[in-house]
Amino acid sequence: MRMSRLHVPTLKEVPKDAEVISHQLLVRGGYVRKLAAGVYDFLPLAARVLRKVESIVREELDATGAQEVRLPVVQPAEIWEESGRWKFYGPELLRFVDRKGGSFCLGPTHEEVMVDLVRRDVRSWRALPLNLYQIQIKFRDEIRPRAGLMRGREFLMKDAYSFDVDEAAALRSYDAMYGAYQRIFSRCGLDFRAVEADTGAIGGSRSHEFQVLAENGEDAIVSCTACDFAANVEQAEIKAIAPLGADAVVPAAELIATPKERTIDEVAARLGVTAAVCIKSLVFDADGETVMVLVRGDHEINEIKLKKLLGVAEIALASEEKVKAATGVAPGFVGPVDLPATTPAVRILADFAIAAMPGGVVGANVVGHHRTSVLPGRDFPTPQYADLRMAQAGDPCPRCDAPLAAFRGIEVGHVFYLGTKYSAPMGCNYLDEQGRDQPMVMGCYGIGVSRILAAAVEQNHDADGIIWPESIAPYQVTLLPLQMNKPEVVDAAEALYSRLSAAGIEVLLDDRNERAGAKFKDAELLGIPWSVALGARGVERGVVELKNRRTRETLELSIDDLVAQLSAR
Amino acid sequence: MRMSRLHVPTLKEVPKDAEVISHQLLVRGGYVRKLAAGVYDFLPLAARVLRKVESIVREELDATGAQEVRLPVVQPAEIWEESGRWKFYGPELLRFVDRKGGSFCLGPTHEEVMVDLVRRDVRSWRALPLNLYQIQIKFRDEIRPRAGLMRGREFLMKDAYSFDVDEAAALRSYDAMYGAYQRIFSRCGLDFRAVEADTGAIGGSRSHEFQVLAENGEDAIVSCTACDFAANVEQAEIKAIAPLGADAVVPAAELIATPKERTIDEVAARLGVTAAVCIKSLVFDADGETVMVLVRGDHEINEIKLKKLLGVAEIALASEEKVKAATGVAPGFVGPVDLPATTPAVRILADFAIAAMPGGVVGANVVGHHRTSVLPGRDFPTPQYADLRMAQAGDPCPRCDAPLAAFRGIEVGHVFYLGTKYSAPMGCNYLDEQGRDQPMVMGCYGIGVSRILAAAVEQNHDADGIIWPESIAPYQVTLLPLQMNKPEVVDAAEALYSRLSAAGIEVLLDDRNERAGAKFKDAELLGIPWSVALGARGVERGVVELKNRRTRETLELSIDDLVAQLSAR
Repeated sequence: MRMSRLHVPTLKEVPKDAEVISHQLLVRGGYVRKLAAGVYDFLPLAARVLRKVESIVREELDATGAQEVRLPVVQPAEIWEESGRWKFYGPELLRFVDRKGGSFCLGPTHEEVMVDLVRRDVRSWRALPLNLYQIQIKFRDEIRPRAGLMRGREFLMKDAYSFDVDEAAALRSYDAMYGAYQRIFSRCGLDFRAVEADTGAIGGSRSHEFQVLAENGEDAIVSCTACDFAANVEQAEIKAIAPLGADAVVPAAELIATPKERTIDEVAARLGVTAAVCIKSLVFDADGETVMVLVRGDHEINEIKLKKLLGVAEIALASEEKVKAATGVAPGFVGPVDLPATTPAVRILADFAIAAMPGGVVGANVVGHHRTSVLPGRDFPTPQYADLRMAQAGDPCPRCDAPLAAFRGIEVGHVFYLGTKYSAPMGCNYLDEQGRDQPMVMGCYGIGVSRILAAAVEQNHDADGIIWPESIAPYQVTLLPLQMNKPEVVDAAEALYSRLSAAGIEVLLDDRNERAGAKFKDAELLGIPWSVALGARGVERGVVELKNRRTRETLELSIDDLVAQLSAR
Repeated sequence: MRMSRLHVPTLKEVPKDAEVISHQLLVRGGYVRKLAAGVYDFLPLAARVLRKVESIVREELDATGAQEVRLPVVQPAEIWEESGRWKFYGPELLRFVDRKGGSFCLGPTHEEVMVDLVRRDVRSWRALPLNLYQIQIKFRDEIRPRAGLMRGREFLMKDAYSFDVDEAAALRSYDAMYGAYQRIFSRCGLDFRAVEADTGAIGGSRSHEFQVLAENGEDAIVSCTACDFAANVEQAEIKAIAPLGADAVVPAAELIATPKERTIDEVAARLGVTAAVCIKSLVFDADGETVMVLVRGDHEINEIKLKKLLGVAEIALASEEKVKAATGVAPGFVGPVDLPATTPAVRILADFAIAAMPGGVVGANVVGHHRTSVLPGRDFPTPQYADLRMAQAGDPCPRCDAPLAAFRGIEVGHVFYLGTKYSAPMGCNYLDEQGRDQPMVMGCYGIGVSRILAAAVEQNHDADGIIWPESIAPYQVTLLPLQMNKPEVVDAAEALYSRLSAAGIEVLLDDRNERAGAKFKDAELLGIPWSVALGARGVERGVVELKNRRTRETLELSIDDLVAQLSAR
């Protein structure tokens, strides 16, 4: 392709509304334009990257025996009512009424449509396992679309759904998809981790997120520095640690004035201690019950673990009113000591780490005061200990005890064991070998195809622009004739363009009437893996300069050697 | 692919709601399922056909220099307000409000989005011509979705948009697309005609529809039996024919009773004449004015020509009330003779053919009566003559006077010169070589990708099922081991499956434990171009039977000859 004909409107300025680097570079590089909040146009270069990702996805899924289908974007309410999600999905499900008054939605996911498709025609255990996938537009009406392609409203997704006779077979389907995902993201040239993820309320569960490691990732993940354990910080289990010995000597608790200090950091600074010596006391409303949860000051409470432990449908931080009713004070001075008598008494839960603290700083339930050296069992009733916090760097691996490392990640894939969550309510059954009606056991498997563009850029860029992994780059090579007013340079570039194209290499010829500096700058910004500079002096000597975008290494080569080297890749 | 693993739920029964043959066969063959009115699931075989069509479309468009993009399905109201279509599009434009109250629609077409994309970044005449295309889901909220994939609500479309400096350049872009379309539909194996089509209100216009010839086509087209003229019947021009000579002797008009006869056919039957001797008198409301239009009884009025001639925005048959006010009678007895005096007088228009009639039968404007042998200029004021009817078989070609033939067609493509219809109101301008701001001159070009499936089946089927053109068939060959209980047959089929697959041929192995009859029946229904039957006796002799789905010719071949023959295709 000739750059003069290609619609690749590069920009010098960083667009004002682009916060993350991938959004900035994809806009500056002429890859995407915003049409509306969370809704993007994909320009020619981005469309090429999408197609490359799609091809890799198709090849790997087809190799597992999965079959591609195409399902509608517009979905009728009826099937969402059958699954129960018409009621529970919330406002991310964009609903509308057609001209005849029928209720429809834009598919944010396709479990209902897929189950509806399979239940119509699949009757026998002989037809299972079955794995159907599609690459299709999805729409989720995010309240705050952000980070460019990373959290848009309309996006391109690959979603697959497996149907099996039982859990064991379903987990084999799961493992096949897990393997395919490893190959897909590897082939896309991404540095990623498959991490254990929360499975919500589904029993017999298994769930992994595929996270591309990147500084600006939305998700916090930990992975073991020794074994291959990796998990979302919300999901990583943290083992109980040895509690404080019975013989430990802890000074008596002391009431101290903290007139202005409310947060852990403020209190720790006032007392000249670290946050690890403090205890956060958080009051939650758990399906109506008031619960106090204690975690160490340098730890993060994990509401998912708390919710699971309590076995409740909803938890949220209690209102100020409820906090006052339970503790007598407003948030900021709340603690587990000297709680006012209430009926029922406030239940106290504590993270395992609290049991190992040789006394801690807590709110005193007195306005403007905290207590130091507070010990559970001595200064307040022994709480129920459990794993209630987020994992963080340095925590021991739940498998091998080696320290965990922390990363930020961008979720580009998710494999999820569903069990009979959709098949049972929607009557997606088969007849087993004994002729009994059984619900199919399902899994679902998503890949954010358009999000991969953003994730690849977040992970692969430098100050000058994008650095595409070769497998998904829009072109492999860009040719830069440096003096367009010298016919021998233009001729050499044209000849090379023809030779490389004929060799099946995807070449972008920058035939614009621009200065060398502008061409170099755009080449860096676009992120094509290889560039070839053709200058007047080199062309006279029969040589060109090949540059690797990632390493910035350059190599002077004869035209023949260049063609041989690029063809061999 | 193994049939036992493929989700291809064939049905013996014709589905009740499927009226047209393509819908019946695509459902029976397990290609599609209906999710909602006009909204279809595409199963694995159909997804393969779609991808083949997409590949052909991409190759031919890329070869013209057009560039693929991906534009959103969800579009903001703002750009539709700029083009004026938010107001004028009507209820086919599915509109909705997002969670924040913003107005959006589902794209039925992408002129607005494309113009918005180009106007942001294209400034100079140097960047033109530009031709951008996408293959994307569209949604049109049809009042009566019907005929399966032929007129659905959600469908897959290729739409391209060209941007040029002036009309001459735009027509070159148009011609390039016209040529690409010829190649695309030829490569899809379709028998089609590029026909001249109505261009509506756009000046400097050019428009062609690409019509696949098929009995059940929605569109009526005529094409010349001598030259290459072809047009939609609405569009085909019909020349004035020689009027009745002044010396022709026509008997005096006569009032006759037709107490029950109202339609042309009823009146002609009563009088024992053909419809060609009768005159239809139709009363229209044209932007408020009442107009009477006369066409021969065997001709069809063409409202598009009438609208153009009158230069009005809207025309429709007049209400019964208006007809009575103009003629004194209800429709059924209306004619041009003895019209009651009205202010203004009813304007009378007549098709050219009326001028050549040696008297005609018309309504008498008296309830229960018609008049015979009525002559314009003698029995009523000479009307304004014009081309006001649909072309039909036998009419003279407007180019060469040879007779026209009539066909039914399915529109699978449309190329349209747009001029500045969208670029002018939306400010999609460029600076010309003199630095002057000019609106870009546009064309738009659509292909109904999913409709091609239906059109191909309408044109290519027999009593037993589909007959896919080879280029878009989901598989090239299906292997039918006829006795699954004979290991030598199964082994031979498996070996052949491996050999053909290794040779790059797309093979479907019917490895189901079904009787030979069922396999033959399904193979016919699915429409794979070649089938290979492996029977016990043949396998013993080292031969198999190759059958051509279209011609039904069979050929006994050795395995080696079979592989050689299929590989050579």
